Amino acid sequence: MTAAAQIGDGVDAIDTPALVIDLDAMERNLARMAEFARTHGIRLRPHAKMHKSAAIARLQIGAGAVGVCVQKTSEAEALADGGIADIFISNEVIAPAKLERVAELAKRIRLAIAVDSSLGIERLAAALKLAGSMVEVFVEIDVGQGRCGVAPTAAGALAQQVVSHGLRFAGVQAYHGRAQHLRTVAEREAAVRHAVSLARSAQAAISGAGIVCPLVTGAGTGSFAIEAAAGVLGELQAGSYLFMDRDYADNEPTPHAPAFEQALFVKSQVMSRGHSHAVVDAGHKAHAIDSGLPRVWGLDSEYANGGDEHGILRAHREALPALGDTVWLVPGHCDPTVNLHDHYVAVRGGLAHGSVEAVWTIDARGAVR
Amino acid sequence: MTAAAQIGDGVDAIDTPALVIDLDAMERNLARMAEFARTHGIRLRPHAKMHKSAAIARLQIGAGAVGVCVQKTSEAEALADGGIADIFISNEVIAPAKLERVAELAKRIRLAIAVDSSLGIERLAAALKLAGSMVEVFVEIDVGQGRCGVAPTAAGALAQQVVSHGLRFAGVQAYHGRAQHLRTVAEREAAVRHAVSLARSAQAAISGAGIVCPLVTGAGTGSFAIEAAAGVLGELQAGSYLFMDRDYADNEPTPHAPAFEQALFVKSQVMSRGHSHAVVDAGHKAHAIDSGLPRVWGLDSEYANGGDEHGILRAHREALPALGDTVWLVPGHCDPTVNLHDHYVAVRGGLAHGSVEAVWTIDARGAVR
Repeated sequence: MTAAAQIGDGVDAIDTPALVIDLDAMERNLARMAEFARTHGIRLRPHAKMHKSAAIARLQIGAGAVGVCVQKTSEAEALADGGIADIFISNEVIAPAKLERVAELAKRIRLAIAVDSSLGIERLAAALKLAGSMVEVFVEIDVGQGRCGVAPTAAGALAQQVVSHGLRFAGVQAYHGRAQHLRTVAEREAAVRHAVSLARSAQAAISGAGIVCPLVTGAGTGSFAIEAAAGVLGELQAGSYLFMDRDYADNEPTPHAPAFEQALFVKSQVMSRGHSHAVVDAGHKAHAIDSGLPRVWGLDSEYANGGDEHGILRAHREALPALGDTVWLVPGHCDPTVNLHDHYVAVRGGLAHGSVEAVWTIDARGAVR
Repeated sequence: MTAAAQIGDGVDAIDTPALVIDLDAMERNLARMAEFARTHGIRLRPHAKMHKSAAIARLQIGAGAVGVCVQKTSEAEALADGGIADIFISNEVIAPAKLERVAELAKRIRLAIAVDSSLGIERLAAALKLAGSMVEVFVEIDVGQGRCGVAPTAAGALAQQVVSHGLRFAGVQAYHGRAQHLRTVAEREAAVRHAVSLARSAQAAISGAGIVCPLVTGAGTGSFAIEAAAGVLGELQAGSYLFMDRDYADNEPTPHAPAFEQALFVKSQVMSRGHSHAVVDAGHKAHAIDSGLPRVWGLDSEYANGGDEHGILRAHREALPALGDTVWLVPGHCDPTVNLHDHYVAVRGGLAHGSVEAVWTIDARGAVR
């Protein structure tokens, strides 16, 4: 689709619905996270599954990140095409045809990948051998999410298999997605304590197998400060900190963690107006609702689900916006919201009176394979 | 993104996750709905917000549909670019810049649009005057959803305004989105009875204003047979019948309505396997969960939410698929699932042993403006 605005347009001229970045807020978030990693002596490898943009990945690397993570082979390809030279696929790939692409990609960038099965390691090794390329391999352990990853005690045997296939063992992938969204600090601390103890068990199992474990990598925006303090992780994968969303804003703030600002918005417009409600032109084809409905920004109003293409605002009659008015929405969940759009419209100078400084393609939109 | 398969590939070669159409099932659905409209003497204008594809719209028009509906100006543009010559934007457009595009589009196709405000009519008339083009105008009434549309009693005044601005008044838009998903026939019948009585009131108000009301248009896959029997609607807008989804399958079947088959699937693969669960590579970036989680097709297993990129299957241990196995998912809701993908992979000969007959671009993917 055509972008919703052009460089130089005022905010008013941005067509709706559109995915808009408040650049000033984003840059402050970028700097705060870079500073946190620097002062804690920990590597930052932000998760690009969130923003899917080579332009934004370049900003993160420019601010000190060692590279980025992605979840899918096609995401890695899209970002490599955009010039990103150090990517970790922090997820398993089991299809031989995809592993061929992984092996091809490894010829042109520094690439890492996660494994959690013997079959996965065998197939990866076969594809790399055929292509004559090499990747770094992380063994993923399940640190409490009950999704991918082996039990920590099994990490030693898998690491040994990685090495015996002549692959580079790079360490342990220990990410706990669900822990990010536990509302209280106490809950997140408990989840991280458990995750960190499992990561230590994995380190012990690997060391017991006579193999050096160079790195434990993991953490997200909801838990990274707790994980950094625990001292086992050497690399943080947080991604959402850059944009934030309603779901993260609902978390109790972690002490000693930087305070991040909302930097991602969906600009919408009132396209129908009833006596006691207003209808905006952004439904869940314009923002993802898997983590709940969006928050209406700067307006004392609730957003109710109006289906794929509409949102219904209810408020005190005086607070209801008029037909044609702009309404800014804070998405419930940033990652899948970004994945609905083809472009970012990046605004400098604030949402009220700013103008469009950049239009960035969301390079890996739809890159689910 | 690159398509997940090429024409001639066997089903096994389709990369995952991918949006797959069972062509045989889709064609049976297409024929059943065309036959229903024919035997009931009612026009069919399927909603293309569901499939967003010019190729599929052409199949529907070839089977007797008078044209298609869309929800957004950019959807209409994308389908017009794909050769569709009769489109109804069954939704309000209020932004002057968008109305300019509507007026431009009306120069090259037969175009209709909905209005529900004086401001909307004025702006539409101004844009058409400037462009020197013409559209058909439907007045939308609220038939119970509480979203867009005026009260039936207000339809006469709006119709008069349409006429007084020199626009073509085409009738009443009377769609009840929420009624589609009421589970029991009795609930849907009650909702339709109410909607139909409101549509009659609108007809009376328009006739009272001395204006002929040529058509009442509306209905969806959950309610069209009830609306057709009620005899007020002259045109059906159902769209989902072509693909179906888990949400519609959960409805109690309407008597005398054709039985539609599931024709849309997400092909996924087991990419991690625990002792008591399997993880597939399709999360809610590959299928929409606004109407609930997908159903696992042909496998006695439940799909649990594994986040953006994963689904977690739990089953009796013997029923759990193995690492690398294919798992077919029936999306919870077809429309927003389609909107996540760039291509349809259309399979002839069934999901087990068929092959790829066509790869269709989802022309209006992301067309939210």
